[in-house]
Amino acid sequence: MRLSRYFLPTLRETPKEAEIVSHRLMLRAGLIRQEAAGIYAWLPLGLRVLNRVCAVVREEQDRSGAIELLMPSIQSAELWKESGRYEAYGKEMLRISDRHDREMLFGPTAEEVITEIFRGSVRSYKDLPKNLYQISWKFRDEVRPRFGTMRSREFLMKDAYSFDIDQAAARHAYNKMFVAYLRTFAGLGLKAIPMRADTGPIGGDLSHEFIILAQTGESEVFCDKQYLDFDIPPVTTDFDDVAGLQGTVDRWTSLYAATSEMHEPAAFAEVGEDKQMAARGIEVGHIFYFGTKYSEAMGAKVTGPDGVDRPVHMGSYGIGPSRLVAAIIEASHDEAGIIWPDSVAPFDVALINLKTGDAATDAACAEIQANLEASGLTVLYDDRDERPGAKFATADLIGLPWQVVVGPRGLAEGKVEIKRRSGGERESVAPIDLISRLKRS
Amino acid sequence: MRLSRYFLPTLRETPKEAEIVSHRLMLRAGLIRQEAAGIYAWLPLGLRVLNRVCAVVREEQDRSGAIELLMPSIQSAELWKESGRYEAYGKEMLRISDRHDREMLFGPTAEEVITEIFRGSVRSYKDLPKNLYQISWKFRDEVRPRFGTMRSREFLMKDAYSFDIDQAAARHAYNKMFVAYLRTFAGLGLKAIPMRADTGPIGGDLSHEFIILAQTGESEVFCDKQYLDFDIPPVTTDFDDVAGLQGTVDRWTSLYAATSEMHEPAAFAEVGEDKQMAARGIEVGHIFYFGTKYSEAMGAKVTGPDGVDRPVHMGSYGIGPSRLVAAIIEASHDEAGIIWPDSVAPFDVALINLKTGDAATDAACAEIQANLEASGLTVLYDDRDERPGAKFATADLIGLPWQVVVGPRGLAEGKVEIKRRSGGERESVAPIDLISRLKRS
Repeated sequence: MRLSRYFLPTLRETPKEAEIVSHRLMLRAGLIRQEAAGIYAWLPLGLRVLNRVCAVVREEQDRSGAIELLMPSIQSAELWKESGRYEAYGKEMLRISDRHDREMLFGPTAEEVITEIFRGSVRSYKDLPKNLYQISWKFRDEVRPRFGTMRSREFLMKDAYSFDIDQAAARHAYNKMFVAYLRTFAGLGLKAIPMRADTGPIGGDLSHEFIILAQTGESEVFCDKQYLDFDIPPVTTDFDDVAGLQGTVDRWTSLYAATSEMHEPAAFAEVGEDKQMAARGIEVGHIFYFGTKYSEAMGAKVTGPDGVDRPVHMGSYGIGPSRLVAAIIEASHDEAGIIWPDSVAPFDVALINLKTGDAATDAACAEIQANLEASGLTVLYDDRDERPGAKFATADLIGLPWQVVVGPRGLAEGKVEIKRRSGGERESVAPIDLISRLKRS
Repeated sequence: MRLSRYFLPTLRETPKEAEIVSHRLMLRAGLIRQEAAGIYAWLPLGLRVLNRVCAVVREEQDRSGAIELLMPSIQSAELWKESGRYEAYGKEMLRISDRHDREMLFGPTAEEVITEIFRGSVRSYKDLPKNLYQISWKFRDEVRPRFGTMRSREFLMKDAYSFDIDQAAARHAYNKMFVAYLRTFAGLGLKAIPMRADTGPIGGDLSHEFIILAQTGESEVFCDKQYLDFDIPPVTTDFDDVAGLQGTVDRWTSLYAATSEMHEPAAFAEVGEDKQMAARGIEVGHIFYFGTKYSEAMGAKVTGPDGVDRPVHMGSYGIGPSRLVAAIIEASHDEAGIIWPDSVAPFDVALINLKTGDAATDAACAEIQANLEASGLTVLYDDRDERPGAKFATADLIGLPWQVVVGPRGLAEGKVEIKRRSGGERESVAPIDLISRLKRS
């Protein structure tokens, strides 16, 4: 993609309203634009990151056996009255009347809708287990939205819902998501720690939050720092292996880890001072087992092997991709701008033409862009008529993993310069060696 | 994907509420489920089709040089007051008050938001032309939603917005979308005819609808049947070639074609009886040039080469992917079910095991599935414990392009049977030849 044809409205000044670094950088790097309080447009570069985050989330959901569908944004209030949550949910729910004065709402979550879909379609234990997920925009009318997409009113959420015949099977479904989440956050370049959590308005009796550590985190968290060195479950993980998954979950819940709501100072003291870690964190995922809470209220039953109907056991599992984009920036940036992990970078390479208008340099850049793209790398080619300093600043700000710098002097020696954004290392390579060098990474 | 692990709630009976064949088949084949009047959940199989339709739309938008972003669903009423459309839009707009009693709405379209983004980011003619598009869920509160996703309240729309320095440049932007649309509908396996259209509430003075012919179409259309034989612009089309694109558009607008609103019987009579075609059609795309209507009202100006500010010239361009899924079914089905065009089929192959539980047949099916998937084909493997008749009926109903039928008798002779869903042709092939046979298509 040529930058001259792209839409990348970067800002020179730091927007005053942005209190945290990810919000500042998302505005400055032209990833988002605020359209109303807590409501953002995702500009082209931001949307590319968001889509890549979703791709990682989706890959791990699919690997675990979850099936993707898509529920509507606008839901009928009737379903929420069945579950008893319509009044309980309070002002965070965006309530709507349609033209016929029917009560509707913009879904903040979808336990009711998925339970309706399930009860209308599934009758027998033979159709279980099922885990159905969607990635869709939700709305919660926060009193005080802030921190950009970290706590916005309209936000993207992956929400999965599991259905099982009994508690033991539901526990396995829970463990599948637990392991999928560990793999997801690692795939995004993040260190996430599962912490026992309060179940809140979702209800239920088993719940974990996945927290990444960041100075700007909204929650205070306490944990054993040995978690930081735990291995992530491998890609070869067998999600049908009940005992194997339970072992992984047991290990990842064996040490102390708690948000402030669940914190027990006495238990934390036993961790030992050298291993204690008190820090701030960002919640990036939340999983719940809530049994028959919705299925009983809404009559979602299946016939068991004994011919007897029983309410299905359910769990729900959320990850917020739009919040994750901000969380990744909190975890990976420097003074000059964003440093995208390779797995979510909006383009792989920033190609910088030091002398736009110089025929030989232009031709070399065009050829390099074509070759890199043919090799499967994505390239944002800065072909603007700007000074090199401005181009370097833009490249650092938007944080693509690689910069390839092409100028007449280097070309005369048969070389271009590459810079790794994360460490800042530079080296000089012949254009013909570029692809193998970048792919070696 | 094994069907036993998938979520495909097909219906045996024809739902009474469905008046048209696409609605009936989408419900029966487990593509969608109604959640409220005119509001649908997209079940896994339906979502796969929808995503493939979007992929074709996106590919042609990108090819034409349009840049993807994503605007929020919930918009501020303020912007619509600036453009003067807040009162004018009427009851189709879903109006919302947030917890602070601010007037918001669920966007039925996004001319206002995109104009706000543009005016906040672009200052100079040097940044033009630009065409920014999104694919997102819109809401229009139809008085009487019906025909399933053909006329639903919550629907998916690709909406693009072009920005140009003057009318001539804007005309070229319009022509780019015109050609991209011709390619898009052809890529979806549809014959679409552009027809001069009324501009309606969008405003402006140049507009075309793209109509596909179908007996169940909501509009009456009149055109010269020679359009049916016109060639589609090739993949090599140069979207920067101003004269070339104008030539293509001139050709595709040279013959008579009009919806009933724009119909002129006298002009139609001149077409000649042998070439006249009066039919019913489905609108699947609509493009508008409306000049400075929004940019003047909302102060979206750019500085020209002469240093003078002027309002930017705009157009907008819509395609409805959720409606297209229904339109494709209207155009491609038979008594037994849907016949998906290859380009949008949810899976390429229905693999049918005639004797689930028979070790040799199960093993052969598992191997065939693995091999087909390794070759890049997508497979829905019917491994259910059901009679062959039920499996054939499901395969015909859901309409995957190929059926591969595997049973003990055929395997004894070293053969499996393949059936092309569209023509019904069957042939017997050795498993080792399957991939080359299916890819030859």
